[in-house]
Amino acid sequence: MDVGTVLVYDRREAEAYAQALRELGVSARLAVAFDPEAARALVPEADILLAWRFPPELYALARRLRWVQCMGAGVEDILSAPGLGPEVLVTRVVDQFGPSIAEYVFAELLARVRRLDETRALQRARLWRPFVADRLAGRRMGVAGLGSIGRELVRKARAFDMAVDGLSRTGSHAHLVDRHFGPDAWLEFVAELDVLVLTLPLTPATRGVVDAQVLGAMRPGSLLVNVGRGALVREEDLVRALDAGRPGGAVLDVFEREPLDPASPLWEMPGVTVTPHVSGPSRTREVAAFFAENLARYRRSQPLMGLVDRAAGY
Amino acid sequence: MDVGTVLVYDRREAEAYAQALRELGVSARLAVAFDPEAARALVPEADILLAWRFPPELYALARRLRWVQCMGAGVEDILSAPGLGPEVLVTRVVDQFGPSIAEYVFAELLARVRRLDETRALQRARLWRPFVADRLAGRRMGVAGLGSIGRELVRKARAFDMAVDGLSRTGSHAHLVDRHFGPDAWLEFVAELDVLVLTLPLTPATRGVVDAQVLGAMRPGSLLVNVGRGALVREEDLVRALDAGRPGGAVLDVFEREPLDPASPLWEMPGVTVTPHVSGPSRTREVAAFFAENLARYRRSQPLMGLVDRAAGY
Repeated sequence: MDVGTVLVYDRREAEAYAQALRELGVSARLAVAFDPEAARALVPEADILLAWRFPPELYALARRLRWVQCMGAGVEDILSAPGLGPEVLVTRVVDQFGPSIAEYVFAELLARVRRLDETRALQRARLWRPFVADRLAGRRMGVAGLGSIGRELVRKARAFDMAVDGLSRTGSHAHLVDRHFGPDAWLEFVAELDVLVLTLPLTPATRGVVDAQVLGAMRPGSLLVNVGRGALVREEDLVRALDAGRPGGAVLDVFEREPLDPASPLWEMPGVTVTPHVSGPSRTREVAAFFAENLARYRRSQPLMGLVDRAAGY
Repeated sequence: MDVGTVLVYDRREAEAYAQALRELGVSARLAVAFDPEAARALVPEADILLAWRFPPELYALARRLRWVQCMGAGVEDILSAPGLGPEVLVTRVVDQFGPSIAEYVFAELLARVRRLDETRALQRARLWRPFVADRLAGRRMGVAGLGSIGRELVRKARAFDMAVDGLSRTGSHAHLVDRHFGPDAWLEFVAELDVLVLTLPLTPATRGVVDAQVLGAMRPGSLLVNVGRGALVREEDLVRALDAGRPGGAVLDVFEREPLDPASPLWEMPGVTVTPHVSGPSRTREVAAFFAENLARYRRSQPLMGLVDRAAGY
């Protein structure tokens, strides 16, 4: 089956993606665009789009488009593009980011309980000052979102002997956690957590869901970790909540607007860690391999991996 | 059964241990000593000794001593005390340090792969510079010593999807690791490792076992982690080996002499992390509870937990 033309769009890695696809033996016609102007010229003839941050206004020019494969896990910008025909399939990368994101989360959690910053300062000063570190074991983690990323967090939290609660829309993985909460039970969910980790997709239902009320229900000394999407959290509410001590700190890899504004107070608030959206990087070869497998399924009319339920938003 | 007098010795926490034992309902007579002079006066009447770093020369004064419970995991100083009668039972704390030490090891490993120091510097400068971090997943860890600490490391390494090899004397836990090596196969053991973690006890057979030859067999870019005993590693050899790039770095929580000499080159060598023996702290209440349980076993003439094989040295 001739699948037509695949338009590969990424501002930095488009050619690397095309090269990886060729090395994987993908035989489809590839069109490559690095910028919106090139994309504008190529999108009318594209049957399939493999892209990251494709300019939303260009979807209206796509006459033949049947399938969009996002290079990442978050598709909120694609789904909200006004020109995207309702019949176009949208897929996102799944099952690839869990290990990286979980390593990021446990790196940050362990750095805090083991006081790594303080330990480094002792070493620089050549000071031998033993202390009894805190432990993750026995602490309670709440994982909001039990997709492939959330489930990888649960798995590692179990290896650290943490208690784990979960919140998800469908409840289909409720058996993995000690206590499961639905999306109407945020306040009960967060009340007893030591660590709340957000892995939710951004949808109309989740935008801004972590607001002043939810933050105020967190325990003093607890920690918010956002590795999902920045707009899950109302950032203004978060700044005020941190000032009030609930939660006691935050590890933030995603923000309402990225890059984070250099004037944001978050950069310098005590107890706040800011990282530049590095928790779950898209690795070109791995994403290319995911797409190649999906393309083979597409040719055979088999179910695609990571197919998005456009009504649910992920 | 009257167990006689328990001498509790610790330079900092002796009274806290005695208090914890009373709270646990231990009814034995307790004698408490904070310093060698007090210990010298009390040791002749002691039937049981619960101690950390008991002055070795005082064992010769013990006339009634039948059992020494070490407050930690390492007993090499007790076993080498010339005055310790061959009939005295020696026990060490087991099954308590694994989770703490494993959290320490993974904190340090994850801090390196996730470049936490660099990330903190970016935050201080309010710079948004994304990067693709390395991953633990797929790396190979070698665990030397498969006691309760080593096995906890294996368990967590599996949760991070690492390959795990092991080296131990008895091989009784060989089934937990991908490849198992005996103590005559150090060079083969270390040759393919990304990370070598030492959890061995210090015995005549293990003292200085990680020498120039073993270090030179490690891969460039590999990492040595010592959470066992400092004297497992020949420190002079290590300094030279690090200079030569094999291993590529080290995380050291224990040293030949502690505190580490402020003049040691290890404090400032690139790729070397020095911490002040904090990986597996003895927690007073937990160690007291371990001793209380062992004392109950002792009264009932049941096998003691953590009983040391004095010939094997641990």
